[in-house]
Amino acid sequence: MPVKLPPPGVRWIGGPGGVLKVLDQTELPARVRWRSCRHPRIVFDAIRRLQVRGAPLIGIAAAYGMVLAARGCRTLKQFARAGARLIAARPTAVNLAWAVRRMLALQTLDRRRLLSEALLIHAEDRSACQRIGKHAYFLLKEPVLTHCNAGSLATGGSGTALAGIYEALSRRKKMWVFATETRPLLQGARLTAWELSRAGVDVTLLVDGAAAGLIASGRVRSVVVGADRIAANGDVANKVGTYALALAAKEHGVPFFVAAPLSTFDVATPTGRGIHVEQRDAKEVLTSAGRRTAARGIGAWNPAFDVTPAKFVTAIITEAGVVRAPYGASIQRITGGRSAKAAGRP
Amino acid sequence: MPVKLPPPGVRWIGGPGGVLKVLDQTELPARVRWRSCRHPRIVFDAIRRLQVRGAPLIGIAAAYGMVLAARGCRTLKQFARAGARLIAARPTAVNLAWAVRRMLALQTLDRRRLLSEALLIHAEDRSACQRIGKHAYFLLKEPVLTHCNAGSLATGGSGTALAGIYEALSRRKKMWVFATETRPLLQGARLTAWELSRAGVDVTLLVDGAAAGLIASGRVRSVVVGADRIAANGDVANKVGTYALALAAKEHGVPFFVAAPLSTFDVATPTGRGIHVEQRDAKEVLTSAGRRTAARGIGAWNPAFDVTPAKFVTAIITEAGVVRAPYGASIQRITGGRSAKAAGRP
Repeated sequence: MPVKLPPPGVRWIGGPGGVLKVLDQTELPARVRWRSCRHPRIVFDAIRRLQVRGAPLIGIAAAYGMVLAARGCRTLKQFARAGARLIAARPTAVNLAWAVRRMLALQTLDRRRLLSEALLIHAEDRSACQRIGKHAYFLLKEPVLTHCNAGSLATGGSGTALAGIYEALSRRKKMWVFATETRPLLQGARLTAWELSRAGVDVTLLVDGAAAGLIASGRVRSVVVGADRIAANGDVANKVGTYALALAAKEHGVPFFVAAPLSTFDVATPTGRGIHVEQRDAKEVLTSAGRRTAARGIGAWNPAFDVTPAKFVTAIITEAGVVRAPYGASIQRITGGRSAKAAGRP
Repeated sequence: MPVKLPPPGVRWIGGPGGVLKVLDQTELPARVRWRSCRHPRIVFDAIRRLQVRGAPLIGIAAAYGMVLAARGCRTLKQFARAGARLIAARPTAVNLAWAVRRMLALQTLDRRRLLSEALLIHAEDRSACQRIGKHAYFLLKEPVLTHCNAGSLATGGSGTALAGIYEALSRRKKMWVFATETRPLLQGARLTAWELSRAGVDVTLLVDGAAAGLIASGRVRSVVVGADRIAANGDVANKVGTYALALAAKEHGVPFFVAAPLSTFDVATPTGRGIHVEQRDAKEVLTSAGRRTAARGIGAWNPAFDVTPAKFVTAIITEAGVVRAPYGASIQRITGGRSAKAAGRP
């Protein structure tokens, strides 16, 4: 049985004069619609509207966006301004700024050279996913529980949290996956369930509140999630709802894994307390699948993510190997003591 | 400022020949629609469709339903059959069967006598809520976090979990309440937020997955929930998602209270392991606000509730007083060593 991987979130069609195709994730799973981007303004719009999401994938889309931007620029100064505009699409997305800066660092408007770099960024991410998958495969015991979407739709390859599942598939082994729906934007229900079932994985969906009871029932043998940012001490910021899974996993002796590329480590931030938790629009909570569900006049608390203290994390799975406690020392070792992001390479 | 309590979930209009009005909770908060029930078949339908919900309120509706049933019966045997049909609306709802049996125990078709008993059942529940509220008022520190709806819409009075909030209001004190939306049916977003804001309480809504991060942030000073069933050792079955709140509250030293009438104790069940967790329709998870959100072919795990072990419960607030650990002994004392339900009185 050949592994049918889900479509990548972005595709570059043609040569330096080509077009960027973006899979509109806001319409999944109802419709598989590709948006053609021939101008960086369209890439900006796709990122801002969350049609492209997932930190690594946003970075890749932005790199291709810079190839498109070079077409309309006559000077490097204009090119830098185009980059700054692109970064503004989601100011808090570290990978976005990182990818744009990497493209600008080439100091060229040669589209052939720029396209090579964008393709390289894409290929590097694909390779990191694959290596994460190999490490994860040997750690994960099924059934696996995951949260949000840290799969092929969030990266340039097979994902971070889901990479181990795809690695199992490529070895003709199946893993049964429980996926939380992940309110408010339902990335678990809409994206993870879709991409895994499309690849032939058995997926069982549950509401976020049901995860603790599922873990308590003994039905889950490992939990694996991605990460938005990891502090120097191993505290993990990830999609809101992650911390509750970690608490339940700890209470019931189920291993809790975080799968993330080295670019996610932010060693300049000593602990999770230093991670700013972004508040998103209250409307996301007050509505459900686009319909108003709460009464008028109600306020909402809608943080994009939460912070799981390192003591709840069994191991962090990276492309360079598996990091375990004591995290301070092992993160220092694997990142070379400085933020991979700050160093300009993922 | 007079306290504007939300409308009761059911109202009997008129004398023994009167009509039962049922607030359709499936349409809240978009529409406040009352359904008139002149036949027990309509009451059955309203209970089955969850237009009337909340264990105590279902019992009250069923008692009035039996007054309606008496109209069409010429023998007590017919009356008993009508009761059995009503019980089938939601076979797992303990209060439903209990209320029907209490009406049948009168051994009469005299509608005046039957209506008195139904009104008494309603009044007893209202009074239990008020007493729970008084005890809760002295225990709860705001801001309070609650889950699902255990308010006026679930009972014949001011609720169980929310009774303390209404008690504070009646003393001209306000409590700031955080409410989880409570997927899959959004009773928190649709019902709790509606009834509290209508009464003038500041309500902040959050997705279920955000509760652990909220508690970790120090913004919550007490958690209070209702209960569907409490085992002899103090293990609490309640709406799915409750256990995750208890885990987070414990980790961060926030008191976790359960507010429930004595009728909720099931001393015939020694521990939470003996409580059967009902699975509900997968469709509830695969859709959101009536719209399909997950891809075709996805399965779902959709338990109606979860079980919180007694060690996570700071205290159980009943109409007869506050129960604390060691729960085995204190529950035995407060219930007289036998299930209040089994004894035929709530």
